[in-house]
Amino acid sequence: MASFSHKDLLGIEPLSVEDVNLILDTAATLKEVSARAVKKVPTLRGKTVINLFFEASTRTRSSFELAEKRLSADILNFSASTSSVTKGETLLDTAYTLESMAPDIIVIRHESAGAPHLLSRVCHSNIINAGDGMHEHPTQALLDALTIRTVKGHLDGLKLAIIGDISHSRVARSDTILFNKMGMDVWVCGPPTLIPWDFHKLGARITAHIEEALEGADIVMMLRLQNERQNEAFIPSTREYYNLYGLRRERMRLAKKDTIVMHPGPVNRGVEIDSDVADAGYSVILNQVANGVAIRMAILYLLSGNAGLRPKRTAR
Amino acid sequence: MASFSHKDLLGIEPLSVEDVNLILDTAATLKEVSARAVKKVPTLRGKTVINLFFEASTRTRSSFELAEKRLSADILNFSASTSSVTKGETLLDTAYTLESMAPDIIVIRHESAGAPHLLSRVCHSNIINAGDGMHEHPTQALLDALTIRTVKGHLDGLKLAIIGDISHSRVARSDTILFNKMGMDVWVCGPPTLIPWDFHKLGARITAHIEEALEGADIVMMLRLQNERQNEAFIPSTREYYNLYGLRRERMRLAKKDTIVMHPGPVNRGVEIDSDVADAGYSVILNQVANGVAIRMAILYLLSGNAGLRPKRTAR
Amino acid sequence: MASFSHKDLLGIEPLSVEDVNLILDTAATLKEVSARAVKKVPTLRGKTVINLFFEASTRTRSSFELAEKRLSADILNFSASTSSVTKGETLLDTAYTLESMAPDIIVIRHESAGAPHLLSRVCHSNIINAGDGMHEHPTQALLDALTIRTVKGHLDGLKLAIIGDISHSRVARSDTILFNKMGMDVWVCGPPTLIPWDFHKLGARITAHIEEALEGADIVMMLRLQNERQNEAFIPSTREYYNLYGLRRERMRLAKKDTIVMHPGPVNRGVEIDSDVADAGYSVILNQVANGVAIRMAILYLLSGNAGLRPKRTAR
Repeated sequence: MASFSHKDLLGIEPLSVEDVNLILDTAATLKEVSARAVKKVPTLRGKTVINLFFEASTRTRSSFELAEKRLSADILNFSASTSSVTKGETLLDTAYTLESMAPDIIVIRHESAGAPHLLSRVCHSNIINAGDGMHEHPTQALLDALTIRTVKGHLDGLKLAIIGDISHSRVARSDTILFNKMGMDVWVCGPPTLIPWDFHKLGARITAHIEEALEGADIVMMLRLQNERQNEAFIPSTREYYNLYGLRRERMRLAKKDTIVMHPGPVNRGVEIDSDVADAGYSVILNQVANGVAIRMAILYLLSGNAGLRPKRTAR
Repeated sequence: MASFSHKDLLGIEPLSVEDVNLILDTAATLKEVSARAVKKVPTLRGKTVINLFFEASTRTRSSFELAEKRLSADILNFSASTSSVTKGETLLDTAYTLESMAPDIIVIRHESAGAPHLLSRVCHSNIINAGDGMHEHPTQALLDALTIRTVKGHLDGLKLAIIGDISHSRVARSDTILFNKMGMDVWVCGPPTLIPWDFHKLGARITAHIEEALEGADIVMMLRLQNERQNEAFIPSTREYYNLYGLRRERMRLAKKDTIVMHPGPVNRGVEIDSDVADAGYSVILNQVANGVAIRMAILYLLSGNAGLRPKRTAR
Repeated sequence: MASFSHKDLLGIEPLSVEDVNLILDTAATLKEVSARAVKKVPTLRGKTVINLFFEASTRTRSSFELAEKRLSADILNFSASTSSVTKGETLLDTAYTLESMAPDIIVIRHESAGAPHLLSRVCHSNIINAGDGMHEHPTQALLDALTIRTVKGHLDGLKLAIIGDISHSRVARSDTILFNKMGMDVWVCGPPTLIPWDFHKLGARITAHIEEALEGADIVMMLRLQNERQNEAFIPSTREYYNLYGLRRERMRLAKKDTIVMHPGPVNRGVEIDSDVADAGYSVILNQVANGVAIRMAILYLLSGNAGLRPKRTAR
């Protein structure tokens, strides 16, 4: 069997094609655990996993937590709202403090790009990036890959259209890096104000016209228009956005016949996607959620064998 | 042994007398687990229970969580404050998302009547209503029944007086339905502004006079005056309310000699009940709490055998 | 083996020197569990521990939770933000309610001095004080003792300088009582406005001059200047405070050559302590964190044998 040599999962960038295939194969195997009557294997028994969520999250946090529980880990949850991070402690001091409690794995979501990398530099524990600012969200990209591979049988050669607010999406970034690496034809599409000028460097083809993106697409991935961020500066109105970039049933005709529709969730129905598209037979949005648990189980399992690569700042 | 054929516990309404007796018998047996040195049985080992609490709660949430832990389930907790439900996702989308993570049981408390029923329509998991708006709170009614049956030996023929804010109480509603079903003489009493005009349809006798309600009562159940809701529109003042409907020691003389006093908690001492009544020997308020864990264990156990009655919207 | 006869850990005050030595010896043994690949022993299997945190906390709460998990306990977490304590329930009613759910151990942090003592009077469960107002924080003092004993080999005869805001520090209070009891020479130092007038009664020598405190000190313990409390009334400015009481490298020359620096955390770098001191080889701040888990495991283990010393207000 191929072996996984990484201590941390900080992003898609450092992964080789072999790494990705190993993760997907492992996840495909572990997916079966969640279908059993007893959804539990003893893989991480007696291991401590810390979920350090500085941003509110439902699906990612619960997906990680379920993955950890189904692997029998002991779990410590932090949310910014109930912890003392508001007391002004630096992230580095928080990291050193938690590390001194001897966790095995730390899962971190943080509003600043690079936060997981900072932890990685000082922690003996395995670090998993669960989303850092506008930077990366590697487990999301991997679950997207598992979803596509499960339906299509392979990844290479497929055309993927990622449509929406590319600038503020760590998903778009991780997906583009991953699917370009795996030999897919990646298109990103959105209002020019919401596409970073240098996105082509990640291997994406860029268009402002949804028709061009959808034309012959094997996979259409819609992104959430993040109402919780200030969008007024980027788009004239939600209605205008829907007219130009909303996924409606008639637009689906441009895509391949056997196309599938994806969305990282939560969905804004009637904004970036219509309900009859989100709930159609070609929508695999809920498959993405199910695959998320499997991918996270795979990552936890593969990393947990690789601790101790870095000297620990030990307690006497 | 009688068998329990329900997939969900959405309310008291759908339960037969046999169902209720089966639940109470099961709870009476499981109550013993919490008295052991090792308070744990492997009944739900490897099962995933999601506690989805959209309203703050101490006693109900902790009662469910303890029941789940003592049955060895894996648990995922959601509170509105730490989740992304604020991002505007619909309840239905939240339900589909959680369901895709393959839970076995979902316990939901929601400020809207009918929320558990919505989940029930789309979820393969067993759904347990932990309180929905002003509608039902079935596990509370069942723990009340267990408490009465344990002390009195039976339910039928007893006179129950429910006193207080009937309108805003899902407990009053579930209790009335349950105890009427079980052959008790149910009275509800409170300011006319706080009694729904159609409550007699549930089988209750209605009075605005506490003396009439207490007269010969076997059980007196006081309801919390919910200060967190706007009461100014319904009662002149808390003091006035206390004078007319507060349970004081001298008023207890009207009830039967062996009467018991109940309260779903948390208690407003000096508002709806005096301390010397709440703490008296005839008060079974803490018995209710203890029985709550047993009832929830029974419900979790009885439902967990009955999944899969509904087609699952599965992931590919 | 010496035996531990206390039902609760409410403070350092009631502990004998033998009790302290037993706790430290037990912790030193249990520390090894956190260094194993499988960080888990079945000591508290099937026991229920309730963590009742009325104040936000990262390190103390997580330290307790990890200790509990590594002893295999079932855990129920309460934080003020997600519970209904805001509904105006008295602490006593909350205690009775939780107690009725048959926990084995309750860990409480509360903003009021004496809250754990109130619980102790009515609860059959073992009560552990995790910090009560400005009063005591016994597990912090014990982890400090374990840290000093591990590095220095003994406690008696050592000079300890506690520097900072003594008035608002339950750590200073518990440390002073503990280390005076163990035969150490305890000095407290800070602005006169931040030292209680009667602190000498606890066995401390008091000075307003940091040089006098540091002179020949074996251990320097810096306290957090709690910015979250109003300090304007007590010190002219943070800068002034740093000039007079901040621990800088050059000041360390006054202490013994083999001195160690401690801090209960979280650290305010550049306020009460400089980064080059906090991160120096003589800093044992992270050792304190690691020892915290071990001390809490020891306390949980030692107390868990001693329930039932008080009549329980049982449910029928």
